[in-house]
Amino acid sequence: MQVIIMACLARRPFTLHGFESRLVATARYHSSAGRPFPVSTRHYSSARAADIRNGDFSALKVQQGRLMDTLHQTCSFGTGKRWGSGPTETGMSRLALSDADKQARDWFVETTEALGCKVTVDAMGNIFAVRPGRRGGPATFAGSHLDTQPSGGRYDGILGIQAGIEMLNVLRDHQVETEYPIGVVNWTNEEGARFPMSMSSSGVWAEDIPLEQAHNLQEVGGGTATMRSELERIGYLGSTPASYRSMPMAAHFELHIEQGPILETEQQKVGVVKGVQAYKWFTVDVNGRDAHTGTTPLKSRADAMLLAARLITHSHRLATAHGALASTGILTLSPGSTNTIPGHVRFTLDVRAPADATVEAMEADLKRDFAALAAGDDIDGLLAHSTPGKPLSVDFRTDFVSPATVFHPDCIAAVRASAEAVTGSAGLVRDMTSGAGHDSVYASRRCPTSMIFVPSKNGVSHNPEEYTSSEDCAIGAEVLLQSVLRYDRLRAAR
Amino acid sequence: MQVIIMACLARRPFTLHGFESRLVATARYHSSAGRPFPVSTRHYSSARAADIRNGDFSALKVQQGRLMDTLHQTCSFGTGKRWGSGPTETGMSRLALSDADKQARDWFVETTEALGCKVTVDAMGNIFAVRPGRRGGPATFAGSHLDTQPSGGRYDGILGIQAGIEMLNVLRDHQVETEYPIGVVNWTNEEGARFPMSMSSSGVWAEDIPLEQAHNLQEVGGGTATMRSELERIGYLGSTPASYRSMPMAAHFELHIEQGPILETEQQKVGVVKGVQAYKWFTVDVNGRDAHTGTTPLKSRADAMLLAARLITHSHRLATAHGALASTGILTLSPGSTNTIPGHVRFTLDVRAPADATVEAMEADLKRDFAALAAGDDIDGLLAHSTPGKPLSVDFRTDFVSPATVFHPDCIAAVRASAEAVTGSAGLVRDMTSGAGHDSVYASRRCPTSMIFVPSKNGVSHNPEEYTSSEDCAIGAEVLLQSVLRYDRLRAAR
Repeated sequence: MQVIIMACLARRPFTLHGFESRLVATARYHSSAGRPFPVSTRHYSSARAADIRNGDFSALKVQQGRLMDTLHQTCSFGTGKRWGSGPTETGMSRLALSDADKQARDWFVETTEALGCKVTVDAMGNIFAVRPGRRGGPATFAGSHLDTQPSGGRYDGILGIQAGIEMLNVLRDHQVETEYPIGVVNWTNEEGARFPMSMSSSGVWAEDIPLEQAHNLQEVGGGTATMRSELERIGYLGSTPASYRSMPMAAHFELHIEQGPILETEQQKVGVVKGVQAYKWFTVDVNGRDAHTGTTPLKSRADAMLLAARLITHSHRLATAHGALASTGILTLSPGSTNTIPGHVRFTLDVRAPADATVEAMEADLKRDFAALAAGDDIDGLLAHSTPGKPLSVDFRTDFVSPATVFHPDCIAAVRASAEAVTGSAGLVRDMTSGAGHDSVYASRRCPTSMIFVPSKNGVSHNPEEYTSSEDCAIGAEVLLQSVLRYDRLRAAR
Repeated sequence: MQVIIMACLARRPFTLHGFESRLVATARYHSSAGRPFPVSTRHYSSARAADIRNGDFSALKVQQGRLMDTLHQTCSFGTGKRWGSGPTETGMSRLALSDADKQARDWFVETTEALGCKVTVDAMGNIFAVRPGRRGGPATFAGSHLDTQPSGGRYDGILGIQAGIEMLNVLRDHQVETEYPIGVVNWTNEEGARFPMSMSSSGVWAEDIPLEQAHNLQEVGGGTATMRSELERIGYLGSTPASYRSMPMAAHFELHIEQGPILETEQQKVGVVKGVQAYKWFTVDVNGRDAHTGTTPLKSRADAMLLAARLITHSHRLATAHGALASTGILTLSPGSTNTIPGHVRFTLDVRAPADATVEAMEADLKRDFAALAAGDDIDGLLAHSTPGKPLSVDFRTDFVSPATVFHPDCIAAVRASAEAVTGSAGLVRDMTSGAGHDSVYASRRCPTSMIFVPSKNGVSHNPEEYTSSEDCAIGAEVLLQSVLRYDRLRAAR
């Protein structure tokens, strides 16, 4: 692997054509696994070169002000709900392939091209900006997404892209030439908020979702636009096939806000994301019998709402026992009248755990115990102090299965080393499993991948008030930059 | 009290004008409280006269075939959903003041007039058909309603009216003259299904609901019709004020299907209804915090759905402890996404018990315990095996209060004696408290009242499949008839 650093720190725009010609006073450091970097025959003019040779990237500082100014400036494309009085205290509403998303995309293309990248748009509108390295081959990517929830915040997805832009800026500032190309990718419709399939375009790239299916996704809310029609309309239906075969990646790193409370609660700064937890989504139907609330004694009831309440209570107990998560986000009942005992309740159950086996064990326990409780058998005292009623039935339907994703050890190691270097303390860094899906899930199916988490204030996300401090954003961006460079060095060493 | 029975059982239409003139061979029995019936000076030609003198009304048999044929024939006015293949296996859809309700009303007026009644319609469209007695004064009424739920059955309300008609038929068959007038009343919009206030017109009659308010009730479902406009349209806006002052009642008896499973379960035939239980309706708001199901550890959650599930489970436990009823018929949550923990849940709580004090005690316990559970304090092991989370808050709103109704001992005694006489066994009769509201609740505020319950198959009501056997309908009708006669006798004895 080689990292080249130019002594000249001039801020003039980096252009690819001028790149080799400006490599007059460069330093080249060659490393191979386990050996110190062999010094190249070229001449170095910069003191910083020695640091980088030793794997110390501390000279490559992200500029927190530039990172945050750019992030907030681009949030003028699709500004959302105001939640505070400050100039940046508004959320975002930048639905995929909307006019606001087109503005953000145009800015992304223009900016990355100005930073020396070659931009490719594929048939799903994924935008790959690649900065050449000394050698050819697939780029090591930093990637995330510019689309948001309809009532989203300024960090989810956006921070990962902005950190990628800042990476390009820092490399230009320091005139660093990587051994292999590096890139920044903006994935289309990660949120699935407008076209109802999360991570649809990284899924097509991974060839896990058929192109046709994704193209035909119709916008929610009754409109007739499809992903394909909107890609055409805003000029982002690229000619390059949406596939890892046409746009291979050497690796994929993604900086993202945690969207949960763990880092904040533990007073830590960086999460080294080792994978994404497994999850299954179920729909549970509880079938009892409608009856009059006033005329039906407790013992004569087949009360679907009471049983559903017990099942939800029990699902939490099982999750506690398994070290898993169980959540009910939707519940409907019928007939829905104050004085009618519901004969039918339907609710969702979202079960997650780091290991597939845990989710499977949860599913087996849920099915066994739900049937028992429906039949009137007590479990763990849940039916204590109650009046036995009539039996009910419970049906399970599996709606979605997402197996556990295990990220690549090389990428995880690169993130961990970078996080410890940037924060200066292993104690400020923790290994984590992502609870939510990300484009990195699909990326990891076709290339080594890992993610970097930074704290979310109060764990709030998908909300205008989503917030991560500028300091934490800059730490995350610096860890992303170092992770990409470490991986580039690793590739070169092989 | 006097009951006059004519030996002549001729079926020619009973007309009031011919009544006294046909009382040629009549028997008059005079009774007073605690004494055997003194025999009048008149001559009796019928053997049955002696039975009635002794309080044995067994000669006055309802004709089950006539009762049921008439009931089913009038169900051609507003036939509802078919649920079986038999000719009477359809439900009813006869909304108050609809064209179908007008047909039923016209039939009721025509039929009761043909049976010798004077018909009065009041300003709420309540129809009072009064058959004169030997003396003047307020009538003893049998009453119920001809309107149904949109997807109702053939018995709720309808049976009570038809039994009143059968009462008139039997009295005509046997040429019985009561001491005081007796009547049949059809109350308007008991169901409150079209104009959203149950028992609205008996409520106006009782002067518990202002006429203006009831008149202005707008039909549900987006239409612009009001009760007043529909009363006018179908010709049932009467000129008599809707008030117990204008149409006083000596007593009110109502035969009704149980709408619950108790009589069927206990294999009994008649319920002697001593009152209507108290109830309160509450809306409970559970306030937590929206969060991502995947990224939020159990301990960091303020899961409004989980707490709501526990509260509903606990409300059932409290109902069991108090010998009360607690039911949740409506539950909504937000934001309503499979992968978002709901930050807010709203549900209804319908609490009932025979005594007001029990409902009050339930309310106090519910408020105390809901607050404790929201704060994370365990009650009766409900939080066992669980992961303590963040505190939530619970708000209570009282939507409706219906105090307990206690029926009149004289009416209750008349029903009990009649039920035991008709069934021939005290073991087939049970005292009951009505779980649901009826027009008898308002009637009881202005005159002595009681009700008679007959079995509902599977306890099903407000459903096309609502069913009571012909035999049970006839038993109920005969108990109604005897109750009215016993009360008439009681009045006369005073």
